[in-house]
Amino acid sequence: MPLQEYKIYLPKNEIPTSWYNILPDLPEPLGPYLTPDRLPVAPSALAGIFPQSLIEQELSDERDHKIPEEVLEALAIWRPTPLVRAVRLEKALGVKSRIYYKDESVSPSGSHKSNTAMAQAYYNKQAGIKRLTTETGAGQWGTALSIATKHFGLDVRVFMVKVSLEQKPYRKVIMNLMGAEVFPSPSTVTKVGREALNKDPDTLGTLGLAISEAVEEAASRKDTNYVLGSVLNHVLLHQTVIGLEVKKQLAIAGEKPDYLIACHGGGSNFGGLVTPFIPQILAGDKVKALAAEPESCPTLTKGSFTYDAGDTAGFTPLMPMYSLGTDFKPPAIHAGGLRYHGASPIVSALLKSKLIDATAVSSESVFEFAKLFANSEYVIPAPESAHALAATCLKALELEKLGKPGCLVFTLSGHGLMDLAAYQLNIPQND
Amino acid sequence: MPLQEYKIYLPKNEIPTSWYNILPDLPEPLGPYLTPDRLPVAPSALAGIFPQSLIEQELSDERDHKIPEEVLEALAIWRPTPLVRAVRLEKALGVKSRIYYKDESVSPSGSHKSNTAMAQAYYNKQAGIKRLTTETGAGQWGTALSIATKHFGLDVRVFMVKVSLEQKPYRKVIMNLMGAEVFPSPSTVTKVGREALNKDPDTLGTLGLAISEAVEEAASRKDTNYVLGSVLNHVLLHQTVIGLEVKKQLAIAGEKPDYLIACHGGGSNFGGLVTPFIPQILAGDKVKALAAEPESCPTLTKGSFTYDAGDTAGFTPLMPMYSLGTDFKPPAIHAGGLRYHGASPIVSALLKSKLIDATAVSSESVFEFAKLFANSEYVIPAPESAHALAATCLKALELEKLGKPGCLVFTLSGHGLMDLAAYQLNIPQND
Repeated sequence: MPLQEYKIYLPKNEIPTSWYNILPDLPEPLGPYLTPDRLPVAPSALAGIFPQSLIEQELSDERDHKIPEEVLEALAIWRPTPLVRAVRLEKALGVKSRIYYKDESVSPSGSHKSNTAMAQAYYNKQAGIKRLTTETGAGQWGTALSIATKHFGLDVRVFMVKVSLEQKPYRKVIMNLMGAEVFPSPSTVTKVGREALNKDPDTLGTLGLAISEAVEEAASRKDTNYVLGSVLNHVLLHQTVIGLEVKKQLAIAGEKPDYLIACHGGGSNFGGLVTPFIPQILAGDKVKALAAEPESCPTLTKGSFTYDAGDTAGFTPLMPMYSLGTDFKPPAIHAGGLRYHGASPIVSALLKSKLIDATAVSSESVFEFAKLFANSEYVIPAPESAHALAATCLKALELEKLGKPGCLVFTLSGHGLMDLAAYQLNIPQND
Repeated sequence: MPLQEYKIYLPKNEIPTSWYNILPDLPEPLGPYLTPDRLPVAPSALAGIFPQSLIEQELSDERDHKIPEEVLEALAIWRPTPLVRAVRLEKALGVKSRIYYKDESVSPSGSHKSNTAMAQAYYNKQAGIKRLTTETGAGQWGTALSIATKHFGLDVRVFMVKVSLEQKPYRKVIMNLMGAEVFPSPSTVTKVGREALNKDPDTLGTLGLAISEAVEEAASRKDTNYVLGSVLNHVLLHQTVIGLEVKKQLAIAGEKPDYLIACHGGGSNFGGLVTPFIPQILAGDKVKALAAEPESCPTLTKGSFTYDAGDTAGFTPLMPMYSLGTDFKPPAIHAGGLRYHGASPIVSALLKSKLIDATAVSSESVFEFAKLFANSEYVIPAPESAHALAATCLKALELEKLGKPGCLVFTLSGHGLMDLAAYQLNIPQND
């Protein structure tokens, strides 16, 4: 009997050679970025912290952006990533639905963040920049950027949300191994960090504050730029390789998806999977796109659509997005990548125009299904990714009850090998 | 310009369907296993802790053993594994040699140990066994067996060398997540463990002692069998999928290897890579097989060829092997998988007849080249595997000096994401 292949691979030459930019296909144009005085931000105002190439991508109305050769070669280190039919999970759940996961955990950093890290490091290098600063929550982004800067020969300083650094000290070990400097945020190396520590020495930190620290430092040094791991249009652009590959892989599998599900923190993973499918949704395709977020940080399901800053100090422009407010301090849940008050303007616009949907998942569900996945697929998902997994399993069980099994696809945005402290707290241990 | 493919994949149907048994091809037969009174052990004496099928494999003179369908399906979850041309490492080293690594880190457990874990769990299940016991050093084997027992529906109890458990507590979290029970060894649940604790409450533990604990428990319960992750002939047999795949992959790459290098603890990884090449070495092929072990536990390079027990308490038969003596207590080096006093009888016989060679690598070299590998290939090697990596790099540099670049292949037997405490101690950190 021939062995069944449950992983759908693409040959190396099927890596997408262009990113898909959804901006020209949105039902209505995104509102402009605004200054604190509510005046449109001039593109030149962003030039202090971003290279021209990324500013152009941020505001572009071109549908396709050719991926530079050097970025393509970097992506080819691990891409295309497999799309995996989770047959043993389906059996464990007892459902007739077909569940697929796009395995972004196979990247050098163990998450989808490498897709945009390589691109952003490249464009900054091209612009003559020597050094980058950034924030990281769970550490996936900081890890990805450390590897990307090593690949393209740049220095990097990472501000890691303090509570996340304490929960996963080994993230810092990896980043240091890759040559990055890592500070807990709030830190004493920036003004905004010192102010936050003065106000509350015991603060857990937030992504919003870590962004402020990284932006402050980049704005004050000519050789240094800032890079963001999510939220912005150009970040979502770079992540579209996920959805573009999934489209080809589903075609190979002979599948028409009913649900596309990804977890949502800032929106890059969700946007990367879903935006390439939006043109067909606009054309009447019934595929449903579902963003899965934590109940404890419910930006899309309980936030308001408003103009808000991306960071705590208000260094970033005001962006039109769903937000819980820049002073929202999420509890120390074990999915640092989803502890963000805001959402990407693109995902916000898609939700506002009801082209996508969102759901909030409880921490109990997340770890229940993470265990089921580990015990059936033998892969330990990152707690962030387990939100998408849980939403997928709950949807598959719901479809089963209705007698309407379907095809569900979710992104396994990262593995959980750096998140075992969270598993230790949430899964029974012997002894 | 088409993208260069540096990973050599095999299609699913190229998974080896038989294991290669080297016993009939050894220059002289292995000496028999002996009782403490130096009498040959009857196969039936092993039946208390092993199923008949594995005892037959242990003593078989059949060259090829068909892999059962269910084991093949389990292996196909992650096999064939890629053979990767480490082009960026070659560049970082500045050598003209071609360096390839067989990436066994992509298995569900993150190491080559899954190859035999799946097979052993299957054969025990077939024999009606409900429960397994084992030891683990670094935790790679315990993790692999936890996943394999979950796959085949068995219970499992793991005795983990105390110093290793303290160095990597998250290994226990993974095993618990997969449904295994884990105890630090020496433990209070066995007689031999309690005796060791009485003698020295602060003992670090050794693999030899952990084996004694697992064997004691298996021998005392009818529903429970013992499984070993290395050393024995049937374990090396199951690992030959590594070398059998490498042969096919090198043929695809159009390469004739000059060096085959693997780290050596008990011998399963080394034996798995190398034994399938022994027939051609016997036929005059000049390929050199090199075992890399730590300077601090130099079984092959400084041990004596003798009859010795595989464990501390002397529960196992005496086996003809290189050994540092069962009372050898290696220092707490950060490569728990290589802290073993003995060596597999097969590897020992190959070394004794000079069909292979061995080298001891310093801890400094191990971490120096591990960092270089992480900084060029973007994969963090397990400290065990980094011994093979270091030996490979040193050999490539030596060949470069001689002006004789060649083709070197080593096994990346596992990733180092569970070993970051060792990296923290050995790689400079900021702050």
